[in-house]
Amino acid sequence: MTCEPQIGDVFGELLRDALAVATGVGPRPLAGGRLPRPVIEIIERDDGLVNGAPAAHYLDRPERWQPYDHRAVDRVRGATLDVGVGAGRIALPLQERGVPVTGLDTSTGALDVCRRRGVRDLVHGTVDAHAASGRRYDTFLLLGNNVGLLEGRGRAPGFLAALAALARPGAQVIAQGTDPYGTRDPVHTGYHERNRRRGRLGGQLRLRLRYRELGTPWFDYLVCSPDELASLVRGSAWRLADVDDRDAPYYLATLQLRGR
Amino acid sequence: MTCEPQIGDVFGELLRDALAVATGVGPRPLAGGRLPRPVIEIIERDDGLVNGAPAAHYLDRPERWQPYDHRAVDRVRGATLDVGVGAGRIALPLQERGVPVTGLDTSTGALDVCRRRGVRDLVHGTVDAHAASGRRYDTFLLLGNNVGLLEGRGRAPGFLAALAALARPGAQVIAQGTDPYGTRDPVHTGYHERNRRRGRLGGQLRLRLRYRELGTPWFDYLVCSPDELASLVRGSAWRLADVDDRDAPYYLATLQLRGR
Repeated sequence: MTCEPQIGDVFGELLRDALAVATGVGPRPLAGGRLPRPVIEIIERDDGLVNGAPAAHYLDRPERWQPYDHRAVDRVRGATLDVGVGAGRIALPLQERGVPVTGLDTSTGALDVCRRRGVRDLVHGTVDAHAASGRRYDTFLLLGNNVGLLEGRGRAPGFLAALAALARPGAQVIAQGTDPYGTRDPVHTGYHERNRRRGRLGGQLRLRLRYRELGTPWFDYLVCSPDELASLVRGSAWRLADVDDRDAPYYLATLQLRGR
Repeated sequence: MTCEPQIGDVFGELLRDALAVATGVGPRPLAGGRLPRPVIEIIERDDGLVNGAPAAHYLDRPERWQPYDHRAVDRVRGATLDVGVGAGRIALPLQERGVPVTGLDTSTGALDVCRRRGVRDLVHGTVDAHAASGRRYDTFLLLGNNVGLLEGRGRAPGFLAALAALARPGAQVIAQGTDPYGTRDPVHTGYHERNRRRGRLGGQLRLRLRYRELGTPWFDYLVCSPDELASLVRGSAWRLADVDDRDAPYYLATLQLRGR
């Protein structure tokens, strides 16, 4: 036996089961074949830290959102691309309000869940691939900590360029992040320090997700301060126009497309 | 970085945090240093399967118990050893009823949690080590699936002999197990089949527990049918006197000490 997970659509399987638990439709995870079992997302960090988090929040209706999610959605205008649409937590209420919203995800299972929940406009793939489609947007949403998709100094320029290629003049990015540097927990401060010694940003997490027998490959996910975000944005087609940190350590960053 | 957990008192840390969440006393796990985070026990199986389970149930008062726990406790008589006392879920209500109960655990953190919750008689160690103490019992409890502590054909005789060494004449063991063979999930049936090909019992799970940066070493934990349990007990100082499977696949097995 290998002790290693099979590579697969962890996020899609997780959301499919979370939807089954929430709706009572379809096979639900059971303990001993009988007692309901909550769907738990398992996040492993490459130093051996592991965290389990109930997946139900991916389906949260606005009544259960954090305050910054509401403020993010209030900033939406025009054609909107929800980058990492997940289970459609944000896209579905936007669509219900009449916002022309497209959900993008690399997980086919996540897109299935969105479709079953009623999200109409869905695209499978990365922002880079989607840029070739010719579709253009006024607002890009990176919610649910998806500042993380910038990954680090290596990936951020390409990611921001792909968003710019998808952007109409005057477009904005609304990105939610978490400043990781308030903690004194040595498990985290030691990790940040080791990262910096290796030339990485302190909160450049190397993670994989696991659910049942499946795992993702290891990937970088960025948890950074607003200052670090500002330095990643510098030199790109975007300008960091605003940081709303009323719910610190969580924040909403607004990027504006520079005039050309 | 290693991707491997540090070996440590996973169960104790988990229960300590679960107690802090339940009581509001002491540092509680937080997401982003701010939002409460449930305590999740992570169970890895050696084929790469992983499961996250909320730890709160370890503190459940009788109102939240499964029916078989109540029936187990109703069978208790005399001096009682709760083997794998955990957070004292069973021992504390027994003590409140006036039962002379001793809680045994290999986790010092679990014993700390028991002590803080008010369990008075606690012993650190294994049944084997405790047998040397000279203390003797009328009832042994293996609840919370602790039939698992029999591990398999290799360990079961020694474990049952240690209980017999701790037993007064006429003593009983009340052990709760789960029959694992009702499932058609190939993740499980395939595991059972591979186990049997290697000469192990089908449900002889090879597991480790993880919590935050800590992990246990890999250990065997037995999930077996009542028939398999009967065959493990055969030839020991115990006789399988009764199997209550009213809540199948969960069951309560009662072992009686043979007359000498």
